Amino acid sequence: MEKTEIATLLNEKVNTAHQFAYENGVTVTEARPGYARGELAVGGNSINPFGTVHGGALTALADTVAGCCACADGRTCVTMGCSMEFLRPALGPLLVCEAEPKKLGKTLSVIQIAIKNTENKPVVTGTFTFFMQDIK
Amino acid sequence: MEKTEIATLLNEKVNTAHQFAYENGVTVTEARPGYARGELAVGGNSINPFGTVHGGALTALADTVAGCCACADGRTCVTMGCSMEFLRPALGPLLVCEAEPKKLGKTLSVIQIAIKNTENKPVVTGTFTFFMQDIK
Amino acid sequence: MEKTEIATLLNEKVNTAHQFAYENGVTVTEARPGYARGELAVGGNSINPFGTVHGGALTALADTVAGCCACADGRTCVTMGCSMEFLRPALGPLLVCEAEPKKLGKTLSVIQIAIKNTENKPVVTGTFTFFMQDIK
Amino acid sequence: MEKTEIATLLNEKVNTAHQFAYENGVTVTEARPGYARGELAVGGNSINPFGTVHGGALTALADTVAGCCACADGRTCVTMGCSMEFLRPALGPLLVCEAEPKKLGKTLSVIQIAIKNTENKPVVTGTFTFFMQDIK
Repeated sequence: MEKTEIATLLNEKVNTAHQFAYENGVTVTEARPGYARGELAVGGNSINPFGTVHGGALTALADTVAGCCACADGRTCVTMGCSMEFLRPALGPLLVCEAEPKKLGKTLSVIQIAIKNTENKPVVTGTFTFFMQDIK
Repeated sequence: MEKTEIATLLNEKVNTAHQFAYENGVTVTEARPGYARGELAVGGNSINPFGTVHGGALTALADTVAGCCACADGRTCVTMGCSMEFLRPALGPLLVCEAEPKKLGKTLSVIQIAIKNTENKPVVTGTFTFFMQDIK
Repeated sequence: MEKTEIATLLNEKVNTAHQFAYENGVTVTEARPGYARGELAVGGNSINPFGTVHGGALTALADTVAGCCACADGRTCVTMGCSMEFLRPALGPLLVCEAEPKKLGKTLSVIQIAIKNTENKPVVTGTFTFFMQDIK
Repeated sequence: MEKTEIATLLNEKVNTAHQFAYENGVTVTEARPGYARGELAVGGNSINPFGTVHGGALTALADTVAGCCACADGRTCVTMGCSMEFLRPALGPLLVCEAEPKKLGKTLSVIQIAIKNTENKPVVTGTFTFFMQDIK
């Protein structure tokens, strides 16, 4: 996929109204083969009962960025599974997620992510496995 | 924890405005030692780019219900890690999550969840590990 | 696959010399569509530095039994990933593992396992994902 | 922990007879705060029914090296959970595992591992969570 095509994809499919991730403050800022990056703008509705960012919001960020990383070669993908480690309480105002492939396969791709807080400390790490499909 | 106390906890801490899960359609309907149950009312903003329910919304449901299961004995808990398997595309209108303990420990509790769709088919399974703390 | 075929498969492929699992005390005692069961006879070389059964021995048991469960319909499979929770220190003399499907798919199957000790207490739980292939 | 103490620990506790990992070809070659490395010498009994290295042997290597990484500051640890991704069929003659911390905590440490084959290609990745304890 060329750079402009990825930009179009992000604008039309990911960073767009009614998407769960986008509506909850997630924006994917970069996606290219081998790398993707996104942000979560923590808001008043991002929290769990302890006042830190909810695991669902963190997963919305992680899954979205990991998926863009897996699909940045022009294919489409479905999340099959993930494992996540919540290393520290996550707080705003901004959380940044970076994704890199552990493996890009014909049928399955494995992507690792790390979410860092504003002080650049890792708060979440995770591994996502995607089922890959060619776009018809 | 007594039944009324759990009901109060759910109403005041979980099923309440500005909570990420609640704002995204999650309601915990039952929590008692050994079991918890919750629902996700799928809405127009619940989706991923494929039009199915986003993994972040599913995790918001799963983590919230699992946490209520872990804490139903009157302690508080922090999610340390999870693994999830996305078995089928998740669609609305309603997804139901049930949680049961694999282990309730002094320091760590392990809770398994299953999310089923309106046809009662499992769409997501997962395991959450919590760090347990007494309420001071 | 018929019952006699599964028995032959177990005897010729799984419960046989030079297999890692078998050489380390693992025997699969039952495999049929929807269920498999195996045992680990804990021996003097099964231990980790703390004197309990090593995670590698437990995984040898779990992966083998889960794989037999996934393949009990006559297909072959490769382990793609797993998550495991070590709930209690594992001790001998005998550990029993049971496996059941969470999903049996065309391409991917997800199998959950539980390992119990001689007192019938769960010591390990886990989830294995397999890539399924027809036998040519 | 000082360098000589770690060497003594490895020789007396890890790379020693009757240990499951050692008896199955695993040797830890290096352990220091922030890093550990070990090897699996693949042998005739390392295999699964497909003739590749069994997941249990790979986990014996991974868990042992990850544990040495977690404990290299002079504490002791118990494996609480792990997730592993089997990226490619693992073949001998030698598999090398490296471990690094994702987090070193007071109570919990999270260690990531990667196993590479003789051609330096990653065959397994994984994440191990340990419950940490001071040595009395």
